[in-house]
Order: sequence, then C-alpha cells, then structure tokens
Amino acid sequence: MPNFISDNHLFHNPVEFAMSKIGGTYKMPILWRIKDKAWRYSELAASIPHISHRMLSKCLKELTEDGFITKEIFPEVPPRTEYSITERGKKASEIIAILRNYGAELMQDYGIKSH
Amino acid sequence: MPNFISDNHLFHNPVEFAMSKIGGTYKMPILWRIKDKAWRYSELAASIPHISHRMLSKCLKELTEDGFITKEIFPEVPPRTEYSITERGKKASEIIAILRNYGAELMQDYGIKSH
Repeated sequence: MPNFISDNHLFHNPVEFAMSKIGGTYKMPILWRIKDKAWRYSELAASIPHISHRMLSKCLKELTEDGFITKEIFPEVPPRTEYSITERGKKASEIIAILRNYGAELMQDYGIKSH
Repeated sequence: MPNFISDNHLFHNPVEFAMSKIGGTYKMPILWRIKDKAWRYSELAASIPHISHRMLSKCLKELTEDGFITKEIFPEVPPRTEYSITERGKKASEIIAILRNYGAELMQDYGIKSH
C-alpha cells in the first residue's frame, strides 16, 4: 500500500492508521471498559491503573473527537458526565477482543502466567 | 487481568504484551513480508520505507530471539542470509491481516483514500 497523509501525519500502512486512533497504552483499556455500558469519568480514573487525569482527559477527548465514544452531560447537581460506545467504537472493541485473545495465547506460548 | 512482569517489564494486560513483541513501526511490516517466503536482508532493506539499517537489524534480531522468524546463513560466496517465518510468526501474521483489514475499513469510514 502506498503512503498516505491524514491530519498532516504520514502513514505507511493501514495498521499505522488504526494504531494512531486506538493504539498507545490507554485507549484500548478505556474502550474495553466502555464497550458494554456507560462509564463516568471518576469510575474510569479509579479503574485504569496508573493513568493520570491529564492522560485520561486527553484520551477521552481524542476518542470522542474520533467518533469511538460519546460524552453525555446530565444536568444534575453536581453534573454527571458519562461516556458511551459508538458503532465505530464497537468495531474497535471487536479488534481489541482479538488482540487480547492473541496476547493471552502468546503469553501462554511463552509460559507466562499473570497473577 | 492483574499486572504481570516479563523480562523485567511490567505489563497491565495481554495486548500490551503482544504489542511489546510485534508492535512499533516496523515489526509488522517485516513479518508481513516474510510470512509467505524467505527474504534476504537486502530485500527487506529495499522494500520497507525509511527503515535504517540499525533499526532493521534490531527488529530482525528481536523477532528472531522472540521466535517469530528464523535466520539462516547459506555458506556461499558471498554468504547469503535469509529470514523465514516460524509457526509463532504465522499466528502473528494472521493478527496483522486482521489489523490491516480493520485499518483499511477505518480509513474508508473516515473517507481516507491511499494513493
């Protein structure tokens, strides 16, 4: 596949493009949580190990702008903010499921146990 | 999934582990080429855009040590070195195929054409 440019960024193949949208340390863990039900910001912050508020906010903003999740603010006191999966995010979560299974198989292949 | 340590590196989930083995800019492009036939170092260097010799050597060494490819040296004059896929590498290439298809779908979803 030839190179292509998106958002002023040069990509060499479709995997690079996909990883620019859902790669990195935190976006897959976020999508993996949100895929089945809406999550509040504070729930995500408490659930994802070692994530800073700055990083969580950045990831949620990018995932929202990129159309993988939606942000809904409920006018309560105090206001409640929830993040939900979109159709694009659901497709991504199917890929994440495949990668998780593959990673688990690879760990087994290497004789690594998680505990 | 709880955290786990492999090679003195802390991982938080199986995707991180898989990406530590086949992630980054160049390992998937290398595996994707080698999956169907043996490639020589010089062929890979000429085929993969922008890869430095230092980076290509590093990736080939790690993929060999991690059991995704094998290196064979033929005692000719000058010696010929070929890299071939292993069973572990074949499984990885199936995941790469899925990621490539997903990336291409996502590009289409975004209205991005490559050419």
